[in-house]
Amino acid sequence: MTKNEIKIFSPATVANVSCGYDVLGFCLDTIGDEMIVRKTEKKGIFITKIEGYKLPFEAKKNVAGVSALAMLADAQPNCGFEIEIYKKIKPGSGIGSSSASACGSVFAINELLGRPYNKTQVTDFAMKGEALASGSEHADNLAPGIFGGFTLVKSTSPLEVLQLPTPKDMYATIIHPQIEIKTSDARAILPKEFPLTDAITQWANVGSFVHALHTNDYDLLKRALHDVIVEPHRSRLIPHFAEVKSAALIHGALGAGISGAGPSIFTLSKGIENAKSVERAMRDVYSSTTIAFETYVSRINTGGIKIL
Amino acid sequence: MTKNEIKIFSPATVANVSCGYDVLGFCLDTIGDEMIVRKTEKKGIFITKIEGYKLPFEAKKNVAGVSALAMLADAQPNCGFEIEIYKKIKPGSGIGSSSASACGSVFAINELLGRPYNKTQVTDFAMKGEALASGSEHADNLAPGIFGGFTLVKSTSPLEVLQLPTPKDMYATIIHPQIEIKTSDARAILPKEFPLTDAITQWANVGSFVHALHTNDYDLLKRALHDVIVEPHRSRLIPHFAEVKSAALIHGALGAGISGAGPSIFTLSKGIENAKSVERAMRDVYSSTTIAFETYVSRINTGGIKIL
Repeated sequence: MTKNEIKIFSPATVANVSCGYDVLGFCLDTIGDEMIVRKTEKKGIFITKIEGYKLPFEAKKNVAGVSALAMLADAQPNCGFEIEIYKKIKPGSGIGSSSASACGSVFAINELLGRPYNKTQVTDFAMKGEALASGSEHADNLAPGIFGGFTLVKSTSPLEVLQLPTPKDMYATIIHPQIEIKTSDARAILPKEFPLTDAITQWANVGSFVHALHTNDYDLLKRALHDVIVEPHRSRLIPHFAEVKSAALIHGALGAGISGAGPSIFTLSKGIENAKSVERAMRDVYSSTTIAFETYVSRINTGGIKIL
Repeated sequence: MTKNEIKIFSPATVANVSCGYDVLGFCLDTIGDEMIVRKTEKKGIFITKIEGYKLPFEAKKNVAGVSALAMLADAQPNCGFEIEIYKKIKPGSGIGSSSASACGSVFAINELLGRPYNKTQVTDFAMKGEALASGSEHADNLAPGIFGGFTLVKSTSPLEVLQLPTPKDMYATIIHPQIEIKTSDARAILPKEFPLTDAITQWANVGSFVHALHTNDYDLLKRALHDVIVEPHRSRLIPHFAEVKSAALIHGALGAGISGAGPSIFTLSKGIENAKSVERAMRDVYSSTTIAFETYVSRINTGGIKIL
């Protein structure tokens, strides 16, 4: 018998991972939303509670609602679902806030329906919700949330997600300066065309990064974690980005870059001690400014969304 | 005691491999040059014999000579070397003819000197010779010749080569239409800038290709072997490219694309039977034209250059 109610943890995620703009991502586990989803006799999607941040209750205007409606339209179950959202990931932070909502609801509904859909299909429904937030269908935050670990979105149409190996002992540190970057600004600042030479550097790094994950080669990871395409432009929207990055690298981070569209900055480290030392170094940079910030240290979450 | 003379087989190679322009390459073993290199009392590099194709005897004007001179300038041995070149790979064929010469001489001299240099260093010297042929330092044909199998050139400055795994049972088929493409034309036809969306597709494919090699996933290899950057432009320089590619894919090739700068077209296959069937299909296309051609079927050569 399937359950009538489920409580889940939908983790924050980091997209792009320096070299892999629009395709690479990884999953965190010390920060994420909680959601409770339960079956209702009445058909439809009903968002009954939202705590943490102010978001629309109307299902069609809420990313968790939109992805849930997409799944319902396909599954045509003889019931509806109500959703409670305990939002912990601040919208606009760059660590997959909308994505956690979009995939949390469909993951939970899929469980309550007895898992009719595989992970790729669940991600596909979640893309409908993500599109409400970002204006286009992306999966680079959704895939790590649903699959866990490091993922590569090979294509979105049709959706194809590759699960990459996660080296043992790998940790991430995130610093989230509490500033707002408008998605429209983050996009407008990017050129539409790039020199072939830069693109070659980028795909050499993507290939090297994937090889490094497979061979557990931390030194190579370090040499691959560079972004010559997006970071030179978008980093201008994040105050003190260069100092934060430099502090992280000086303290032994494998790499540092913009998490998603920012403003959060992510780093990767070998071992939790290094991740904590990098956290302190990054905090020191923003502590000397007037900008409020939060930091998170997390192992790479290889399980993705989980049932609580 | 080290030997005074060595005979080697310096194989043909395929660069770019559809998705990995300028970074990916693999090594063949049914076609390649032979070279004999022997120590001389007189210091210097002396090209004493060239058979097969007409190439300059003057060391400074011959790619094998230039790479050898670069190694000598660094090694400062108390001797010189004479080189005999038995050229089997037609210059300008797109399967690494100059590269085979450039890396053959330095591989052989390194052996005769007792291997003072590692494979990356040998490749670095070979780049000097390759630069004479192509005008700039590239290693995407050199690396598979020296390392064997599939390689990824992460960067050329400093040179870093990654050896990728070769799936068992992988074969290549090459068709070489006997037409001339000028390197200057092959370059001029490429735009200097590309849309970000195409670059993203390309690096998703590079990452997928590397993952597929590590996981022995032939289906994924097939989906990753696409080139949205270079092939749409350069294929216009190769008559009947679209028909040849289409014939290869219809007959079960994993992928088909331009080998290096062309005009050769490469395909990859699972198993020799498929590679031979693809060879027949491609021959059929050119057989109905006035264009002369050669074909080669080869397993992927995981050993690279070898001593005969």
